[in-house]
Amino acid sequence: MKKKDLLKADLLKTKVEHVSLDTFNPVPLIEAMDKMAFQARNTARAAQIYEMMLKEKDCAVILCLAGSLVSAGLKKVIVQLLENDMVDAIVSTGANIVDQDFFEGLGFRHWQGTPFVDDNVLRELHIDRIYDTFIDEDELRACDDTCKKIADSLDPRPYSSREFIREMGSWLARKGKNKESIVLRAFEKDVPIFCPAFSDCSAGFGLVEHQYRNGLVGKPTMSLDSAKDFLELTRIKMDVKETGLFMIGGGVPKNFAQDIVVAADILGVDVGMHKYAVQITVADERDGALSGSTLKEASSWGKVSTTFEQMVYGEATVFFPLIAGYAYHKKAQKGRKPRRFAQMLELSPAARG
Amino acid sequence: MKKKDLLKADLLKTKVEHVSLDTFNPVPLIEAMDKMAFQARNTARAAQIYEMMLKEKDCAVILCLAGSLVSAGLKKVIVQLLENDMVDAIVSTGANIVDQDFFEGLGFRHWQGTPFVDDNVLRELHIDRIYDTFIDEDELRACDDTCKKIADSLDPRPYSSREFIREMGSWLARKGKNKESIVLRAFEKDVPIFCPAFSDCSAGFGLVEHQYRNGLVGKPTMSLDSAKDFLELTRIKMDVKETGLFMIGGGVPKNFAQDIVVAADILGVDVGMHKYAVQITVADERDGALSGSTLKEASSWGKVSTTFEQMVYGEATVFFPLIAGYAYHKKAQKGRKPRRFAQMLELSPAARG
Amino acid sequence: MKKKDLLKADLLKTKVEHVSLDTFNPVPLIEAMDKMAFQARNTARAAQIYEMMLKEKDCAVILCLAGSLVSAGLKKVIVQLLENDMVDAIVSTGANIVDQDFFEGLGFRHWQGTPFVDDNVLRELHIDRIYDTFIDEDELRACDDTCKKIADSLDPRPYSSREFIREMGSWLARKGKNKESIVLRAFEKDVPIFCPAFSDCSAGFGLVEHQYRNGLVGKPTMSLDSAKDFLELTRIKMDVKETGLFMIGGGVPKNFAQDIVVAADILGVDVGMHKYAVQITVADERDGALSGSTLKEASSWGKVSTTFEQMVYGEATVFFPLIAGYAYHKKAQKGRKPRRFAQMLELSPAARG
Amino acid sequence: MKKKDLLKADLLKTKVEHVSLDTFNPVPLIEAMDKMAFQARNTARAAQIYEMMLKEKDCAVILCLAGSLVSAGLKKVIVQLLENDMVDAIVSTGANIVDQDFFEGLGFRHWQGTPFVDDNVLRELHIDRIYDTFIDEDELRACDDTCKKIADSLDPRPYSSREFIREMGSWLARKGKNKESIVLRAFEKDVPIFCPAFSDCSAGFGLVEHQYRNGLVGKPTMSLDSAKDFLELTRIKMDVKETGLFMIGGGVPKNFAQDIVVAADILGVDVGMHKYAVQITVADERDGALSGSTLKEASSWGKVSTTFEQMVYGEATVFFPLIAGYAYHKKAQKGRKPRRFAQMLELSPAARG
Repeated sequence: MKKKDLLKADLLKTKVEHVSLDTFNPVPLIEAMDKMAFQARNTARAAQIYEMMLKEKDCAVILCLAGSLVSAGLKKVIVQLLENDMVDAIVSTGANIVDQDFFEGLGFRHWQGTPFVDDNVLRELHIDRIYDTFIDEDELRACDDTCKKIADSLDPRPYSSREFIREMGSWLARKGKNKESIVLRAFEKDVPIFCPAFSDCSAGFGLVEHQYRNGLVGKPTMSLDSAKDFLELTRIKMDVKETGLFMIGGGVPKNFAQDIVVAADILGVDVGMHKYAVQITVADERDGALSGSTLKEASSWGKVSTTFEQMVYGEATVFFPLIAGYAYHKKAQKGRKPRRFAQMLELSPAARG
Repeated sequence: MKKKDLLKADLLKTKVEHVSLDTFNPVPLIEAMDKMAFQARNTARAAQIYEMMLKEKDCAVILCLAGSLVSAGLKKVIVQLLENDMVDAIVSTGANIVDQDFFEGLGFRHWQGTPFVDDNVLRELHIDRIYDTFIDEDELRACDDTCKKIADSLDPRPYSSREFIREMGSWLARKGKNKESIVLRAFEKDVPIFCPAFSDCSAGFGLVEHQYRNGLVGKPTMSLDSAKDFLELTRIKMDVKETGLFMIGGGVPKNFAQDIVVAADILGVDVGMHKYAVQITVADERDGALSGSTLKEASSWGKVSTTFEQMVYGEATVFFPLIAGYAYHKKAQKGRKPRRFAQMLELSPAARG
Repeated sequence: MKKKDLLKADLLKTKVEHVSLDTFNPVPLIEAMDKMAFQARNTARAAQIYEMMLKEKDCAVILCLAGSLVSAGLKKVIVQLLENDMVDAIVSTGANIVDQDFFEGLGFRHWQGTPFVDDNVLRELHIDRIYDTFIDEDELRACDDTCKKIADSLDPRPYSSREFIREMGSWLARKGKNKESIVLRAFEKDVPIFCPAFSDCSAGFGLVEHQYRNGLVGKPTMSLDSAKDFLELTRIKMDVKETGLFMIGGGVPKNFAQDIVVAADILGVDVGMHKYAVQITVADERDGALSGSTLKEASSWGKVSTTFEQMVYGEATVFFPLIAGYAYHKKAQKGRKPRRFAQMLELSPAARG
Repeated sequence: MKKKDLLKADLLKTKVEHVSLDTFNPVPLIEAMDKMAFQARNTARAAQIYEMMLKEKDCAVILCLAGSLVSAGLKKVIVQLLENDMVDAIVSTGANIVDQDFFEGLGFRHWQGTPFVDDNVLRELHIDRIYDTFIDEDELRACDDTCKKIADSLDPRPYSSREFIREMGSWLARKGKNKESIVLRAFEKDVPIFCPAFSDCSAGFGLVEHQYRNGLVGKPTMSLDSAKDFLELTRIKMDVKETGLFMIGGGVPKNFAQDIVVAADILGVDVGMHKYAVQITVADERDGALSGSTLKEASSWGKVSTTFEQMVYGEATVFFPLIAGYAYHKKAQKGRKPRRFAQMLELSPAARG
């Protein structure tokens, strides 16, 4: 092995392992936090609201994912929420779904690293850094390439990100090397996954190459229709009585999931606001940006009801397992039935475009 | 006038006015800040780097916009950068371009409000809040509807957001009521605007209605191809020798614009990293999310060179005018020619899909 | 009861309860977090470092407290650390020790409130607010007054804050109404408590009145000698082989405790840097202020060794119980002996001034 | 020169220079910001409030300083406020006054550095780091030693920090090497400076050594009476009709200056709340700590009136010159008379102890 390869192997040595909700029971801690102040109390209230939305009959739970969650060891929590029917639809950044989850489904891993390192050295070694986590860039290219292959195999028409991600799930079911996967489990459970900015990830690289190479030889190509994403998610809102949002981070997933209330209204369908809403974030409201905007502010827009909403100011690797684990160990999922929204969307003629 | 209307009129009384780079000259202040510490020094260095990217021959400047910038009074700064050939392409959230700039182009305005208010009262009055700014929701619906009309007028094929925004510019040129508009000026100057998550804004509402209504009667519809966005922006990177990023906020625009270096590489074209990069943000790197990730981290991914990069930790309404104004008053734009990338993209056969 | 009293009673209804380390066992969660990323991994490493400093023979642990910790429900955790010999000296803001802990020792309580309230109404009702917590201002005045009484009972000479707080402990031992108290337990365990900015709290009000009233009639008064505080804490550093810092928040306690390494050096005594250091904070390093400055930066000053240091970016109500609870349930305190530094300081002639 | 000395000289090469309010006129920018949103509008309002407190007859202005301001290049701004009678009393952290301003008065300087450096190397070279600024540790020791010499020269009695800082001013008047000094100018203008946590800085090191060395040989020593600080600042509040707070950062200075309203009340003197209050900070309110607590919250405590208060979320090196410069260029100081509170305090018998 060359010196460079040795160094690379040395840096990519300790795997990121995914925390499991079965490992710990946060219920006693959360119950104590409920009687305290600041973020402890906010966390407890958020956990209770997530429990409430799960226990309410006819309430669909939409999980929003932003930030580097899967690479940070939160994949299994999301897989467990899927397996236990604790989430009915997912809206995510592309990175979590493709670069991180699908990537691991292909058999690759994330590595424990450090922020105290020379990024120029990492680049030379083809190591990508996410704060204190390392990724093998060569493996990411293999992930991009798999997305291109999937695109090449599809009919040349507009797809919602959900449809494409479903194809990724099908691919993993057939050829995946790591069965603990959000994309795979969602495929099996018919839970739709939306990435409203889907070109902004590894899939985007695959699709760009698909369109470019086929464009050069005049072949028709598939396309990504983000308006279709919006219409499909709005259909879910129109299909259920109540909805609750469990948002990890802000960004496009937060805005997109909140907006479907307004979209349904524009389509002339009278739906209620999101009845429940919880957001874990470190963003600040004082810069006026969406990620840190309060759920109370969202209420002025007619998107979220203020009765059961809670912002939690904290970082997801710590707060997401606590809140999800509380509902899980309180067995809020008991008796909950899978909604299989993906089936509904597949059958909807308008959704097929 | 009813009591409710009176109250609404009272809340929507004081307009947000847009700051002009002609009002003040920050050069002496920035030069003094260069000799200080912390964010003063970072701001000065960022201003110098923006000046450098403008002065370098054969360097295209990509402006990335995230956060509520136009509603906050920053529209004119962006318009002035367009008018003075200080930006060659824009990557933005949809909100800035459609809900805020196009919205004002239709003759509507943003209003000075306050965060210390009951959001339930605002909702009753159809007033939307962005921190300390108010918007008339009824006017926003008119904006959504205009987007639907534009969609209805187009051929039923996949469009990049850039193509659609160009149509919006054309609309404003013909029917706009406020000529001080980013969308309009970019249309006139052939500066392409990309919104990679384009359904996540007022245009999304219009397009959802377009697809839904036409779908109900079996008519073919247009679609939004975000992969095409990615390919088009990558073409720009492949077309020029050097690039510089001037990023206001993080989110999808930051990631998307950084990624084109990798995309070009995947298409087999050897382009350099972004030579210059500046980001104004209040996000933190310690949660591992993209918005606050350092430009040094981006260098490990091979996207940004570390020689001329600077993070500025501050809120855009204060820091964007200072940095843009420095380059403007130093006349960094002198002799710079418009690149008219939009023309190049219109002519590119592959980009037409 | 008058309407005003009724309203006040309604707002002061739900007590803040203090979380107990016996309620939950965070060890499995922390062990899982150690294999993740971002703040999860940082939290795990901080917990391990706190465990290490407890297990090291001849290492004294200094606990630094800033922020509103006691009012937020963290009193019992600190009491439990005292009871289990898991802390050998405390450096704190005055608010935690006097306004909050001593205050509760007098029989008063903190109340669960909300930040969404009109502060002018609260002021009318004599209710003080700390974010989402309420305090009865009339009870706080009784606390101030008790401090004045203690001051009146003392010899008119300069006191370190430690000496005065010891008198407060003695008072609680005799007249306290709530035995679960940091001040009382530290008194019993001979653990010194320092408040380097001691006039900046309820005690300050008492002492100002003591000096003012006695001054008016020409009587000599006691005084607060913060230089003596510094000398006493430095003596502790000179007395032990190794030291570890467990810092909750930043501010004066952080700076003060770090500085004793330099102070010992100035007194000509060769002591090592703090061998272990952990800080929980939400402050940011990018503004150059002390609270968010990294422990690596402290190493340039010769105060903290970089081998076993960890910053944790999080809010104390959640992170302090997790980190303290980890060491507690791992029984790091087993075999650890009380150091009774207060006795050493009482006997030291120079410390007596 | 040895290799080590060469390296040190290379790192301490570029001086931090202090920004002058004469260099730039922020009035047009601030006036434009007033019509915008978010922190631009907050900054404008804060600037207007500072202008108001200066223009109000019988209103004393208390400037609070926390964070590393002087080392960052803000010394001249504070000196200019003193020279133009735009501040009547200062409450500060010790670091700004002693380690940074008095230090520069002795002829030493701060140096432009970088946060991207190995702190262990800096420590070896006796270079202290404040984020991106370097200090020569050997020179700091000379500053500590000068404080010891001043202490040695004083009567062995309790001193307020204000009294001691006045002695430092006297020293600089006689022996200082750099006349642009806050301590010196305040001495000349009879503006009192309080450091309520005065042992927590370079002066603390000097005083510890003073007490330790004299204690060893049984000589009486001076002491630092922080209760006296509190009483003296409260006297100022009792002496004037109205007060305004201009706070840079939070911490002890913020709390201390706010508290004097309550202290006066306890002494039986009916004073109003602080009529005006402005704070520049990057701290967050959501952790419940004092530094980020809102001025509205302070109003529940009866400390600050809510009519003219404004929080500005930003970093001081950028926002302090803008706000101070606005009032300066609007000539808010015109006709304002020096209050010379230091004279009043010197003459007050009770204040002499």
